[in-house]
Amino acid sequence: MNKPKAVLLFSGGLDSTTVLAHALHQGFDVYPLSFDYGQKHKVELQAAKRVASAFKVSLNTIQLALGTLTGSALTDTDKCVPDFGGAQAIPVTYVPARNTVFLSLALAYAEVLGARDIFVGVSSVDYSGYPDCRPEFIHAFEVLANLATKMAIEGQSIRIHAPLLYLSKAQTIQMGCALQVDYALTISCYRADGEGLACGLCDSCVLRKEGFRVAGILDPTRYAIFNED
Amino acid sequence: MNKPKAVLLFSGGLDSTTVLAHALHQGFDVYPLSFDYGQKHKVELQAAKRVASAFKVSLNTIQLALGTLTGSALTDTDKCVPDFGGAQAIPVTYVPARNTVFLSLALAYAEVLGARDIFVGVSSVDYSGYPDCRPEFIHAFEVLANLATKMAIEGQSIRIHAPLLYLSKAQTIQMGCALQVDYALTISCYRADGEGLACGLCDSCVLRKEGFRVAGILDPTRYAIFNED
Repeated sequence: MNKPKAVLLFSGGLDSTTVLAHALHQGFDVYPLSFDYGQKHKVELQAAKRVASAFKVSLNTIQLALGTLTGSALTDTDKCVPDFGGAQAIPVTYVPARNTVFLSLALAYAEVLGARDIFVGVSSVDYSGYPDCRPEFIHAFEVLANLATKMAIEGQSIRIHAPLLYLSKAQTIQMGCALQVDYALTISCYRADGEGLACGLCDSCVLRKEGFRVAGILDPTRYAIFNED
Repeated sequence: MNKPKAVLLFSGGLDSTTVLAHALHQGFDVYPLSFDYGQKHKVELQAAKRVASAFKVSLNTIQLALGTLTGSALTDTDKCVPDFGGAQAIPVTYVPARNTVFLSLALAYAEVLGARDIFVGVSSVDYSGYPDCRPEFIHAFEVLANLATKMAIEGQSIRIHAPLLYLSKAQTIQMGCALQVDYALTISCYRADGEGLACGLCDSCVLRKEGFRVAGILDPTRYAIFNED
């Protein structure tokens, strides 16, 4: 019997790699989708290729020249990605409507593939305050997807799976380790250098490092700066 | 007083040009957004420039290499755009999740501009059976937009305006003529040639032609084939 197809929003980071392992384990034929959207940490696209190759899945990378549609520290050369600032406000690394845009393109891809399942690695726990990582956003997108597409109208309803939605970073890492994920292949850092070395200081690094510590699992991340605390 | 900014999904066709005139008339500072998404009828992008110039608004055209995310007769060179087939089924000119993708990018642009209003020229009357032109789709997108963005979370709620939603093509044309729209500048045809001549036979042409006839307004469209009936 053919496995059901699923599209996965895939960055090559810790979260989406865990979701890749999870979706494969659930028996899906997974089609990861990555975006070259002008992010400064383009080295994550190399991680995405590395991970896709390790899992023997076919990666589709979309060029998305967001141009004047950005304004985020993740894409603008005149804005710096800051050190960890806690989760008290929506940070400058917020990219306007990013998950809406990415999920919309995943929906288009799903419809072309005939896939009814879309996986996304968002978490509402360690989410750095992004509005488009919350359960109500994911639910609203699923409602939209089932109104927007020919396949849904024709009775093939679409499910948005966000298996990390209620998990902390430590729980995500524990899930991935149980599925034999090699996190050394992944990059989460917003300021990773050309060698793929993580800064150890940005929001993404701090949450990841703390996740390994709380999970009691050795952190395989290669840091450019070793942060003692 | 500064006019409020609004983003408009803009193709250079009859509908979105009417909405441009309408939004300007309502007092908005309008930012039209066009997409070069691999459509074969790329000549519509020239019409978009022409209309934007006539209305003295600044057009932003986004390159969106949808690549493997298509499968529509509007983008695939191995599929032909058929002659008018009535509205009995979703036609092959359906582009998977197109309005979802376009509205998502309009939402990103709106957030960057600080615009709370997004205009789109969809109609549920003469909509050729596209699922993403229905009132329930527009409503679901507005719900999503107000959950997805930093600006909405911070109290700047977003409105999706679809002023043509309940209008027939003839009513749209009457609205545009009352606003002095010069429809000779616009292109609606899915098979328009390099000179911008309309085929007169595709769904889009037949609906447009019938609209002028019912409205009792002289059709200024330049057709490659003059269709006698």
